[in-house]
Amino acid sequence: MQTRTATLDEPEHGLTEAVLAQSDVLIWWGHKAHHEVSDEVVQRVQQRVLAGMGLVVLHSGHFSKIFTRLMGTSCNLSWRVANEKERLWVVAPGHPIAEGLNASIELSHEEMYSEPFDIPPPETLVLISWFQGGEVFRSGCCYQRGQGRIFYFRPGHEAYPTYHNAQVQRVIANAVRWAAPTPGAPPVFGRTQPLEQI
Amino acid sequence: MQTRTATLDEPEHGLTEAVLAQSDVLIWWGHKAHHEVSDEVVQRVQQRVLAGMGLVVLHSGHFSKIFTRLMGTSCNLSWRVANEKERLWVVAPGHPIAEGLNASIELSHEEMYSEPFDIPPPETLVLISWFQGGEVFRSGCCYQRGQGRIFYFRPGHEAYPTYHNAQVQRVIANAVRWAAPTPGAPPVFGRTQPLEQI
Amino acid sequence: MQTRTATLDEPEHGLTEAVLAQSDVLIWWGHKAHHEVSDEVVQRVQQRVLAGMGLVVLHSGHFSKIFTRLMGTSCNLSWRVANEKERLWVVAPGHPIAEGLNASIELSHEEMYSEPFDIPPPETLVLISWFQGGEVFRSGCCYQRGQGRIFYFRPGHEAYPTYHNAQVQRVIANAVRWAAPTPGAPPVFGRTQPLEQI
Amino acid sequence: MQTRTATLDEPEHGLTEAVLAQSDVLIWWGHKAHHEVSDEVVQRVQQRVLAGMGLVVLHSGHFSKIFTRLMGTSCNLSWRVANEKERLWVVAPGHPIAEGLNASIELSHEEMYSEPFDIPPPETLVLISWFQGGEVFRSGCCYQRGQGRIFYFRPGHEAYPTYHNAQVQRVIANAVRWAAPTPGAPPVFGRTQPLEQI
Repeated sequence: MQTRTATLDEPEHGLTEAVLAQSDVLIWWGHKAHHEVSDEVVQRVQQRVLAGMGLVVLHSGHFSKIFTRLMGTSCNLSWRVANEKERLWVVAPGHPIAEGLNASIELSHEEMYSEPFDIPPPETLVLISWFQGGEVFRSGCCYQRGQGRIFYFRPGHEAYPTYHNAQVQRVIANAVRWAAPTPGAPPVFGRTQPLEQI
Repeated sequence: MQTRTATLDEPEHGLTEAVLAQSDVLIWWGHKAHHEVSDEVVQRVQQRVLAGMGLVVLHSGHFSKIFTRLMGTSCNLSWRVANEKERLWVVAPGHPIAEGLNASIELSHEEMYSEPFDIPPPETLVLISWFQGGEVFRSGCCYQRGQGRIFYFRPGHEAYPTYHNAQVQRVIANAVRWAAPTPGAPPVFGRTQPLEQI
Repeated sequence: MQTRTATLDEPEHGLTEAVLAQSDVLIWWGHKAHHEVSDEVVQRVQQRVLAGMGLVVLHSGHFSKIFTRLMGTSCNLSWRVANEKERLWVVAPGHPIAEGLNASIELSHEEMYSEPFDIPPPETLVLISWFQGGEVFRSGCCYQRGQGRIFYFRPGHEAYPTYHNAQVQRVIANAVRWAAPTPGAPPVFGRTQPLEQI
Repeated sequence: MQTRTATLDEPEHGLTEAVLAQSDVLIWWGHKAHHEVSDEVVQRVQQRVLAGMGLVVLHSGHFSKIFTRLMGTSCNLSWRVANEKERLWVVAPGHPIAEGLNASIELSHEEMYSEPFDIPPPETLVLISWFQGGEVFRSGCCYQRGQGRIFYFRPGHEAYPTYHNAQVQRVIANAVRWAAPTPGAPPVFGRTQPLEQI
């Protein structure tokens, strides 16, 4: 894999037409500055996803403009920052995103996200989180939109060392491979001629 | 059922807060004036769907602002107006929207819509259309968004007598019953307290 | 609703052709005697489900012949009887089976069932359980098979008063209404004549 | 890819424990001799699929013991051998099984299969067939069962040169790659100890 970064403060947030055209998969993390992301860039990213680019949305990215626009729902949820234990259970052990994972992943300190999570029903649900405080959450959710694949992955609060966990890293790497484009015929839309005599 | 209409030319297109609050299910048909529909009204309708109101989108409503916003995709397709035969096959014969239908519905003259249809994969696919000119189309598509149910139904070009067909009428009536709200607990979002000691 | 019971010790387990023909929905509970259920009766129940009868499978019924046959998988899981707390979270708050439920149902003492649960991915997932011992479980699972609807509901160990809980009763009553048949055209199979000239 | 064949007349139909253990994906074609396939071998294949082996079922294999057992339904359909035209439309143009395909595949002479097709709703529907005689069919259907992936592909009557078509070959090759195992943790079932204090 070849990786590069793009940040909010870059021109066009670093997500120019040229950059997106070269990207197979985009990983999105954002938190308090979702509203600062340009609508034009969001629309551009949406077009690229519909044209086949994969999208992996992490944690607080649930409220990003790109995710809510692609989902069509509020993507709202309940939450709590209390330094508590999370355990992510694999419920689709044969799925490519679960390859090489243990039966569950334990994170001793994380932010809590709770159901109800206002998303479209995942086409495939890969992970469900258990929280010490008594809640559950759909933490690994797969979607197809246009020719692009989207994966939402819950963990990753900025105050905890979640992204140093090897199993978490494995989930993200697996998701990137799963979301990489597998292009069929470019869709042709608009007025069309009959293929049979009518 | 109690029914009423709302049209583009009415104030707020007839879709005021009060009207929507009293509506269990909204049926949407539109064609060339999608862009004249107010974004504010569209957002209001979206909120009501997420809060439980059913939505039945007919034919050229695939390009309406409300449908594309709830789907998150372009909802584009191919088409042809050639006065040709369509036959809709029931592929989910036990589904509530198929109740009382024959194995297929034949419409001797309709506009053609062809795959690829750029929608999220339907959660339930009830009907598939066969067209004389050689195409197929996913013509009866179910979705859940928030607490609301959405049904897209393909037939209904303004130049043909489709809505006088008794089986077509049955599909729409069934869809309204299926989409009527069945409210659970209103979702509570935001910061929350633990239910267990942590 | 009109209800009646059928038990293992009755002739044909009380599930004669005549009884099944009159039944809209069958609720199944079984535990240690699954192997004593006659294959002939199981096949008869399967045919009725495919023909439209609803089926609600409770708790240890996950290992019943009828459920494993309709699912095509082992339906295996992990478990523990330790008198522990279960909390079922509604993850589809607009679904008919969630109508009238709170955000979650707390059962102070239940048997634990843990993922992985070897079932086909539910077409709709309505409930997820949290367990005190650290596990989660997909506890409310919807399927369509033939013209029949199937709902699996996890709680209900014989040593705990689960079925006296009003919210649990509500889930089962909702599931029965949801699973009641909505018959479309009886499927016709076999050799068929063309509808168009070929 | 390394390929080998196994036929009905071989001992254990060529599907010994050793052969299955070495197989990543099994392609199944059968027609009039489904009943001659040993139940023991079918059960063995089912176990291997649940443990992760991919399964690609072709055409008249819809009535094979292994497919009906994994589906839990009759897998019945309507049919006609009339030398007619079939056109398979891609309805999931970004799916790995559609990679490199055209918008549709035309087969000038094939057997017809018609809806209703008594299968569980496909988790992903990749292809829909149009037939000259007026019917449609869900022709490319994806399922997950246990850790294994299953793809049903409709074309392939023994009297027509379907398997010499390059696009048909591409579908099968793509399906094999898609169905190849991606193993997660082997599921552990049975009595289990709590991970948290209860």
